[in-house]
Amino acid sequence: MAKLCLIRHGQSEWNLENKFTGWVDVNLSEEGVKQAKHAGELISEAGIQFDQAYTSVLKRAIKTLHFALEASDQLWIPEVKSWRLNERHYGALQGHDKAVAAEKYGADQVHIWRRSYDILPPLLSDDDEGSATKDRRYADLDPRAIPAGENLKTTLERVIPFWQDEIAPKLLDGKNVIIAAHGNSLRALTKYIEDISDEDIMDVEIATGDPIVYDIDENLNVVSKTKLDENR
Amino acid sequence: MAKLCLIRHGQSEWNLENKFTGWVDVNLSEEGVKQAKHAGELISEAGIQFDQAYTSVLKRAIKTLHFALEASDQLWIPEVKSWRLNERHYGALQGHDKAVAAEKYGADQVHIWRRSYDILPPLLSDDDEGSATKDRRYADLDPRAIPAGENLKTTLERVIPFWQDEIAPKLLDGKNVIIAAHGNSLRALTKYIEDISDEDIMDVEIATGDPIVYDIDENLNVVSKTKLDENR
Repeated sequence: MAKLCLIRHGQSEWNLENKFTGWVDVNLSEEGVKQAKHAGELISEAGIQFDQAYTSVLKRAIKTLHFALEASDQLWIPEVKSWRLNERHYGALQGHDKAVAAEKYGADQVHIWRRSYDILPPLLSDDDEGSATKDRRYADLDPRAIPAGENLKTTLERVIPFWQDEIAPKLLDGKNVIIAAHGNSLRALTKYIEDISDEDIMDVEIATGDPIVYDIDENLNVVSKTKLDENR
Repeated sequence: MAKLCLIRHGQSEWNLENKFTGWVDVNLSEEGVKQAKHAGELISEAGIQFDQAYTSVLKRAIKTLHFALEASDQLWIPEVKSWRLNERHYGALQGHDKAVAAEKYGADQVHIWRRSYDILPPLLSDDDEGSATKDRRYADLDPRAIPAGENLKTTLERVIPFWQDEIAPKLLDGKNVIIAAHGNSLRALTKYIEDISDEDIMDVEIATGDPIVYDIDENLNVVSKTKLDENR
């Protein structure tokens, strides 16, 4: 039996500004920092000790991990960062105000982009200054692996290989694992782990801050799922 | 050609209290946090981009690394933590006030323990509650690898295998490397990298906070050494 803990990063500066974020490397807000520390305190109270940490290459998730590990006095555990745990890439919508996008494309269209499982947002061109192809952190990647825009389906398709190659072997080895990541990369993991349908997953919200803890058996089946919060 | 940057962690809470620290996992002081952020600003001004980070399993070094990487906007680079980069283990002196130790053992004896290359401090027993053998972070280590007290010579003997197996291959591959560690683990590295004698190394002080940057050639020879500071 192993424990798997998922933490969605706390509030970011662009959550506050109501902008599409995606792969843009936006910082945590002050409130987001508080949420991350609080998550660590909940982990500490629950007495959970991790063997391995995973996060994305985006600072709002990395910092959430560090604050949570520090608050539970286990900042020393090994940490692996991967682009495969990044937030869903929001294509040409990245950096744009959600309300302005609704005016430009129509509220229904924006709702479809936000809530459909397999419809892609307008794609970002490689020439765009915001393209991940221009970012040093993706320089060693096959350019065809770098998305120009993703839906939850394509997000899941790049998250799950990392789960299968890196995370699942640790759990099978009985190691306790913490993953600090993003609303949609965690939704993709949740869909896979709990075997949720394409339709139902879109209604699943991963709350920010409060850690979700699974007990996972030796066949990678979920034995229990607990949300850590004040009322435990 | 590759760049190697060494950063000694900033002031810790026990530096302030004048205690022997060693492997005790003491936090940075407020001043230490400032020094770490400042180190990152100096790195940022020098325009140095790293490919790989290394640190110890002690939070004062880990946090120094994180603050410095965040201030230079490269928190996303891969990071490996190893006990081999820990501070020199100060044996039974750990946790004791330096002035009290001087009264108990004599100032000359304490000076010898602090400044000799190959004389061991009084050793800590495995039964002592402060023994690293009781600490979860060393649970996967061969118990015979866990020191009960070190001098600079034995510190060097456990640091250099990590240099040879992990760090040197990166530099030979042209990767820029940052190491955030401790006064004596960095002194051991400096001795090895610069081929400094057993006598002379004891007079080498690694300043806290200001990053030291080496240019290293394809034979791992030092081409230049620069201390980053305000006056560059």
